[in-house]
Amino acid sequence: MTDVMKAIVQTTEGDPEALEIQEVPKPQLQPGEVLVKVAASGVNRADLSQAQGNYPPPKGGSEIIGLECAGEIADTGDTDRSVGEKVGALLVGGGYAEYVAVPEGQLLPIPEGWSFAETAAVVETACTVWSNIVMEVGLKKGETILIHGGGGGIGLMATQIAKALGATVAVTAGSAGKLEVCQKYGADILINYKEQDFAEELKNKCDVILDIVGGPYLKKNMFALAEGGRMVTIGLQGGNKAEINMGVMMMKGIPLHGTTLRRRSLEVKAEIVRQTIENVWPMLEDGRVKHHIHEVLPLAQASTALKHLVDSTHTGKLVLEQ
Amino acid sequence: MTDVMKAIVQTTEGDPEALEIQEVPKPQLQPGEVLVKVAASGVNRADLSQAQGNYPPPKGGSEIIGLECAGEIADTGDTDRSVGEKVGALLVGGGYAEYVAVPEGQLLPIPEGWSFAETAAVVETACTVWSNIVMEVGLKKGETILIHGGGGGIGLMATQIAKALGATVAVTAGSAGKLEVCQKYGADILINYKEQDFAEELKNKCDVILDIVGGPYLKKNMFALAEGGRMVTIGLQGGNKAEINMGVMMMKGIPLHGTTLRRRSLEVKAEIVRQTIENVWPMLEDGRVKHHIHEVLPLAQASTALKHLVDSTHTGKLVLEQ
Repeated sequence: MTDVMKAIVQTTEGDPEALEIQEVPKPQLQPGEVLVKVAASGVNRADLSQAQGNYPPPKGGSEIIGLECAGEIADTGDTDRSVGEKVGALLVGGGYAEYVAVPEGQLLPIPEGWSFAETAAVVETACTVWSNIVMEVGLKKGETILIHGGGGGIGLMATQIAKALGATVAVTAGSAGKLEVCQKYGADILINYKEQDFAEELKNKCDVILDIVGGPYLKKNMFALAEGGRMVTIGLQGGNKAEINMGVMMMKGIPLHGTTLRRRSLEVKAEIVRQTIENVWPMLEDGRVKHHIHEVLPLAQASTALKHLVDSTHTGKLVLEQ
Repeated sequence: MTDVMKAIVQTTEGDPEALEIQEVPKPQLQPGEVLVKVAASGVNRADLSQAQGNYPPPKGGSEIIGLECAGEIADTGDTDRSVGEKVGALLVGGGYAEYVAVPEGQLLPIPEGWSFAETAAVVETACTVWSNIVMEVGLKKGETILIHGGGGGIGLMATQIAKALGATVAVTAGSAGKLEVCQKYGADILINYKEQDFAEELKNKCDVILDIVGGPYLKKNMFALAEGGRMVTIGLQGGNKAEINMGVMMMKGIPLHGTTLRRRSLEVKAEIVRQTIENVWPMLEDGRVKHHIHEVLPLAQASTALKHLVDSTHTGKLVLEQ
């Protein structure tokens, strides 16, 4: 093997259109890591934020964009894995490349009958959704969950997992077309946020809210939460600042959580991956949870993929293939 | 028994000084309740808020002030308890009276060797502290907890329970004298908030914060929380409004909780009481957790007791005795 590989490199800082394939050094393996030859990489909204300069990689992480992939193990490092083993991988970065170094605890099997592209389309959303709606805020059977951005990759995954857990699912989205897709994947209550006030529709009814909007929705989300409800914010598409009335938080007893998967410790990520394999992978294999790929593009068209996210006209996931 | 009893009645709405003993109807028992003849009632800051008109009792609750008491069972209702049994009781209200109706799940035994006044001084703080620092935000051995208002009844109880659990305890208080008391009860890190900036002293160091200040401390509390830390707000002595940066909440992964014990369901209160008896009562009986009574006053002097809370010159608890 040579010491170089192809990867997506940003040639102008902060410009998501300035992404091109270049030759860069192959990643060096750290103890406990394997080298994966990437076949397909999932595209996430965080990738766009990183390309816009708003979501820098954590210290020591790869500068290359990309939070999930699927492919084959090319170098087992010091692990007991096998060369050629087909895997999915949850990444801190580095997915938009020919090779990526992955801590063994962040490898997932390919679900039976699934392709690389299909697997790369669900790793990050499955881990994000499970770690937040179950591990972080404990969604239970019979509860009602409100999922903002129901038509996105996270939204469709959250809807399906929540339905599989026996919850009632309410979603918000910005068009009738997106809401139709949400309904197809199981959403029970459909809210077009351009025409309806979700807080009025769901006043005191939500046991869990999965939030990707942040500041501008905080007051409305607290209004929509039932007593004892829990919210977890995983995106700030509307901004990070808000005024909060802590009295409402106390009187309703509604904890507010916020997380980013990427910044969790290696140990926590491994536990999230372990629980996701145990709980979500069976749902993928028996069809309770389906992938929803909007489009598969060649890796070289990474900037086109990110542009879809800016326009937000897609539903489900974009995948880059090699 | 006659149908009337003595109780503290507020003669001018919103005026904590307008409290006097009057004859009122005895409480009627609901299914599952016992009638307790009150010997001693603990005084809490929430009592002052209620007398000021800022903390109305929940629907169907007694209008009489008082969240905890100790005494003897005078009527067993439909329960299997015994008349004359000595008990402590967690109340939704009604403690500043000769008799109070108590759901059986909110009765606690008198700790071995403790008096009624001593028991009435710890019921509410023990249940509040256990339900929040353990049940709500999971304080663990080896973690650091910051307790605001370290010299108050909640503060001293929280300090002792946290020490018994093996945590490092930081406290804030407004005078050297109060901090000396905090230290005597086990606090490791003493911060005079009038002279020091607690957020600078404890930047990124707190695994748990028990907050009674609310709005004005929110930003500083979030600054003081470590990654993965948790905060629970149980009082709003500084006000309820704040600006929040949800990005900080996400990047540090710090859930913000708020609770009021009084508004919890009967079932949750019974579970809190059960866990408090199981975990805190042994600490009371073997001396790991001590009461700290500032003063015992006759019930007729309820307004004097509340005035101490306004002045905030006391440390520990005030108790009203009959």
